[in-house]
Amino acid sequence: MSRFLHVVSVPEAVRVVIQTAPAPVAEMVPVERSAGRVLAAPVVSDCDIPGFDRSVVDGFAVLSQDTTGASDAVPALLRSMGRVAMGTGDGKILVRAGECAYLPTGGILPKGADAVVMVEYTEEAGDTILIKKPAAHGENVLLRDEDFKSGETVFSPGRWITPQDTGVLAACGCAAVPVAKKPVVGIISTGNELVPVTALPSPGQVRDANASMLAAWLSEYGCIPRLYGIVKDEQEAFETVIERALPECDLVLLSGGSSKDDRDMTARVIAGKGEVLLHGIAIAPGKPTIIGRIAEKPVIGLPGHPASAFVVLIAIVRPLLDTMLGLQKPLLRMLRGTLAENIPSQRGREEYIRVRVENGVATPVFGKSGLLNTLVRSDGLICIPAGFEGLEKGSEVEVILW
Amino acid sequence: MSRFLHVVSVPEAVRVVIQTAPAPVAEMVPVERSAGRVLAAPVVSDCDIPGFDRSVVDGFAVLSQDTTGASDAVPALLRSMGRVAMGTGDGKILVRAGECAYLPTGGILPKGADAVVMVEYTEEAGDTILIKKPAAHGENVLLRDEDFKSGETVFSPGRWITPQDTGVLAACGCAAVPVAKKPVVGIISTGNELVPVTALPSPGQVRDANASMLAAWLSEYGCIPRLYGIVKDEQEAFETVIERALPECDLVLLSGGSSKDDRDMTARVIAGKGEVLLHGIAIAPGKPTIIGRIAEKPVIGLPGHPASAFVVLIAIVRPLLDTMLGLQKPLLRMLRGTLAENIPSQRGREEYIRVRVENGVATPVFGKSGLLNTLVRSDGLICIPAGFEGLEKGSEVEVILW
Repeated sequence: MSRFLHVVSVPEAVRVVIQTAPAPVAEMVPVERSAGRVLAAPVVSDCDIPGFDRSVVDGFAVLSQDTTGASDAVPALLRSMGRVAMGTGDGKILVRAGECAYLPTGGILPKGADAVVMVEYTEEAGDTILIKKPAAHGENVLLRDEDFKSGETVFSPGRWITPQDTGVLAACGCAAVPVAKKPVVGIISTGNELVPVTALPSPGQVRDANASMLAAWLSEYGCIPRLYGIVKDEQEAFETVIERALPECDLVLLSGGSSKDDRDMTARVIAGKGEVLLHGIAIAPGKPTIIGRIAEKPVIGLPGHPASAFVVLIAIVRPLLDTMLGLQKPLLRMLRGTLAENIPSQRGREEYIRVRVENGVATPVFGKSGLLNTLVRSDGLICIPAGFEGLEKGSEVEVILW
Repeated sequence: MSRFLHVVSVPEAVRVVIQTAPAPVAEMVPVERSAGRVLAAPVVSDCDIPGFDRSVVDGFAVLSQDTTGASDAVPALLRSMGRVAMGTGDGKILVRAGECAYLPTGGILPKGADAVVMVEYTEEAGDTILIKKPAAHGENVLLRDEDFKSGETVFSPGRWITPQDTGVLAACGCAAVPVAKKPVVGIISTGNELVPVTALPSPGQVRDANASMLAAWLSEYGCIPRLYGIVKDEQEAFETVIERALPECDLVLLSGGSSKDDRDMTARVIAGKGEVLLHGIAIAPGKPTIIGRIAEKPVIGLPGHPASAFVVLIAIVRPLLDTMLGLQKPLLRMLRGTLAENIPSQRGREEYIRVRVENGVATPVFGKSGLLNTLVRSDGLICIPAGFEGLEKGSEVEVILW
């Protein structure tokens, strides 16, 4: 194989990789376990929310016109017609001019009333209630269907479900939520220098740190990681593990293999069983990435350096997973900051720089991409687009938070 | 009970609630499943990382002084001494003046060499290698222990473990990671108006939306939620469920019960079995919160309105969980923004306003706290401290992202 990679741009690589994505598959999960999943079908409310005019405070239901000018000194005097019970819609109580009724928070507004005065602004004197503050029409009342209407589409497919969303889903009667099945992502570590975490590395050896990191990141992104351990650089052993992983996974990541020999073997194995779609991306760090497909499933060869692997996860694997999950809006946490110093960059490639962010100032954390400590000392990445020769101190930048 | 709550400030409520926290309990988890957990003990590296001087590129190991002035036109000519094999530290190859050796990325730097020239800047001519670019001392080499030193404390207890952290833990030989056990948090829903998600609410009834929302938020915050369903407002039934939940949980949340009667009963039940530490916090929304303790376990009565319950989760329950988990730095995602409009506030209470954030501009999403849609239409909260009468348009604000 050639010593030089034929690199393609990041947008081109993303275009290629998302075409390898298997279509999302839907499954149902209980609403209280639906957060962190991607909605697979529209959700329609089966009822008005709330289903009735509802008090938002504890107080007295009144006709607002009866309270005009009421004050501590000159309270309005209204006749109490009783208490509204919670959870019932019996409608026994009717409030007419000169009358009121006690109403707990969440209680149904009695017929005739159009406002609620908080109990703190009232005083009881037998059957007479002293109202010490005027209430405007509709005050302290949540109107029927003010939150959501029956038949309304409350969420569209492709939404990442948040904890608050589960509240809306529950209120709409969506006890079982249609979500995208979690993609199973196989992780195969390759490289003669790798030893398991439980072994003490001899000179020339390193522990397989990337596999844990990839697995943890994938779990957070709503996938099920499956670890296949370390494969030495022997083509046959490699092929055996890939054959085992493919039927069990929706996507296979090959965790380098940082040397050219490893990468060449990875490309050879993918080409032998399927096709290599591209080898080399104009991204730094992360250039020697391989995108392939075997048996209609995406197979991606990641670079071996931890920081490089992480950048490729975010720039290339993330859009693939978004497509596999049907996610409409990427799950990136962005933070705006001001750059603390000049950063030169090489034109023609997207460059990702680790940065620390404090009080809105983004400071580059430089370091060789073989280092792990720059990853944990930084808060995220900034991207210098391919057309730029660098970014100047004081520029406004968007930080992709880890 | 009194119609008026005796409210305490948010800092005082936090001081009270964290004193009810049970001490964290440690357990071991495999490193690849340790992300999203809180480290319970210091982690020390059992080896130097890397354990040897290591190449970060594919190239030729050289003595940097041999490459001075090398260029395309006038390359340095060095004699190839062979190839360094990956994963071995046999040290067979020695590089002296006038010599070089091929070295894959991650390979051990041969004795004598002090730099690596990328293969792209070299050319092979039999045993002679043409070096077309000078290399500085140390170039493309990761030095032994440059990342972490053997015996170095890499992480201190109380750290929220990120995916990147798991890479460092793996590299340091920490295959099983000591983490705080996930607190089990019971959720008991109370209120005669509540019906399960599977039921269609009749007039006066609402579905129990808060329980799902609380469970989802607690899962994201590293807890195990346990749902005890809906208890009607009958003291005996309520006591029975609390008695069942207490031995199974580390913390019990009572999800209101938005009416004063419900809250009074909640306070009565807590007082009967343990003690009510406070009832009423100077926070908006969320005032009618109850903090109590039964059998040495915290029991918190949350307000019934969804938005209020969420604010209390973030302002009061979160610091309690941080203490229970031993978390050193709260897990809040903050975003700086500029306020789009004036917000008045009542002095003497912390006020939490839902906001939407777009391009660094925070726009308040006003709405009654009984509404669910303001929670899902907003990106987070801003806090107006107790001493302020409001915030002015154009102020810089910190948004606590959901």
